[in-house]
Amino acid sequence: MESLKQKLREFAKARDWEQFHSPKNLVMALNVEVAELMEHFQWLTQDRSRNLDVETRKKVRQEIGDVMVYLVRLADELGVDPVAAAEEKISVNEAKYPAEKVRGSSRKYNEYE
Amino acid sequence: MESLKQKLREFAKARDWEQFHSPKNLVMALNVEVAELMEHFQWLTQDRSRNLDVETRKKVRQEIGDVMVYLVRLADELGVDPVAAAEEKISVNEAKYPAEKVRGSSRKYNEYE
Amino acid sequence: MESLKQKLREFAKARDWEQFHSPKNLVMALNVEVAELMEHFQWLTQDRSRNLDVETRKKVRQEIGDVMVYLVRLADELGVDPVAAAEEKISVNEAKYPAEKVRGSSRKYNEYE
Amino acid sequence: MESLKQKLREFAKARDWEQFHSPKNLVMALNVEVAELMEHFQWLTQDRSRNLDVETRKKVRQEIGDVMVYLVRLADELGVDPVAAAEEKISVNEAKYPAEKVRGSSRKYNEYE
Repeated sequence: MESLKQKLREFAKARDWEQFHSPKNLVMALNVEVAELMEHFQWLTQDRSRNLDVETRKKVRQEIGDVMVYLVRLADELGVDPVAAAEEKISVNEAKYPAEKVRGSSRKYNEYE
Repeated sequence: MESLKQKLREFAKARDWEQFHSPKNLVMALNVEVAELMEHFQWLTQDRSRNLDVETRKKVRQEIGDVMVYLVRLADELGVDPVAAAEEKISVNEAKYPAEKVRGSSRKYNEYE
Repeated sequence: MESLKQKLREFAKARDWEQFHSPKNLVMALNVEVAELMEHFQWLTQDRSRNLDVETRKKVRQEIGDVMVYLVRLADELGVDPVAAAEEKISVNEAKYPAEKVRGSSRKYNEYE
Repeated sequence: MESLKQKLREFAKARDWEQFHSPKNLVMALNVEVAELMEHFQWLTQDRSRNLDVETRKKVRQEIGDVMVYLVRLADELGVDPVAAAEEKISVNEAKYPAEKVRGSSRKYNEYE
């Protein structure tokens, strides 16, 4: 992750693209990439989405790469460590959704989300 | 990242939520979280987005945590390593956007994006 | 639609919010509202999404209202008539996806999309 | 709007695509189209977004057509009239954001949004 962050910084710097990398612009780009990822799933059944064909899987992998690139770039511009932020969020969620209370119920799942 | 992936697997398993975690559903949840992150930036100038107040910064950090959680969970369900996928994408982009060709031009930047 | 457009113009003007209603900002707001709409569907099966309970249906209706508000506002700022733009797109799609060629096949549907 | 709704119904029926048009799928497609629209704005300044060049304007118009197509299609499947839903939302917002209270302040604007 640290190495990825550095590479992306240098990539932007070498192209003088830092001027375009405001958090406002980067979060738009992140959202656009997530939608490109989502496009592969929009007409699939849930079962099909668990069993992608080889070609779709390859494209999906590339889109995940794009999403990761912009997420790491955005987090870097904001001075946030995304892995630490995720770890903290898991702790919050463990308190919020106790396993014994919400187990296996899509109804509860929806209500708690 | 590996530890984060394991924690999220166990979190879902303990709640019997794996049944809801199809890639189709997870990519929707990922997109929803990115939009919640984006909401904090929608009326800001680009300058303001680079200089968030303390309270917004705190919320933005939590939203980045949520985005990371669903990205790691989705990638795990698809058997994709998001850091490796991002590294590959950087290599592709380095060939696609040579620094000397695209440097500092928002016009070129737009065309190449 | 014309009356809706006028009301939204006056709403923004009365609050001196036109300054915030750049197309860049409005498209972000539109995307955020669509994600809020999508959130109601993220953990549902497709069947459940066709048969919403009364409370969810009510919320979904309000979110559709929000989406429409920002779409009409954005189109107005850009000088685009969204109904005419949609009519044109249907003509394009009729040529692109001839009924006899793509009928009933999710595989073709995916490829053509 | 009524004519647009009817055309889209017939378009789907003629292709036997109604089976894919669950609200869950349609809201994903709507979100994907909004992101394609947003992509045109992601690296622009707000001023540039108010003054698009001719080519971008043409593409943006087409994307607005796509967004409208899926919004009308989704609302039809849910039995919601999007114009009526928007009108209702404006009434709610008029009470929520009284003009004299929120006028011209981006700070208030943010807080109230």
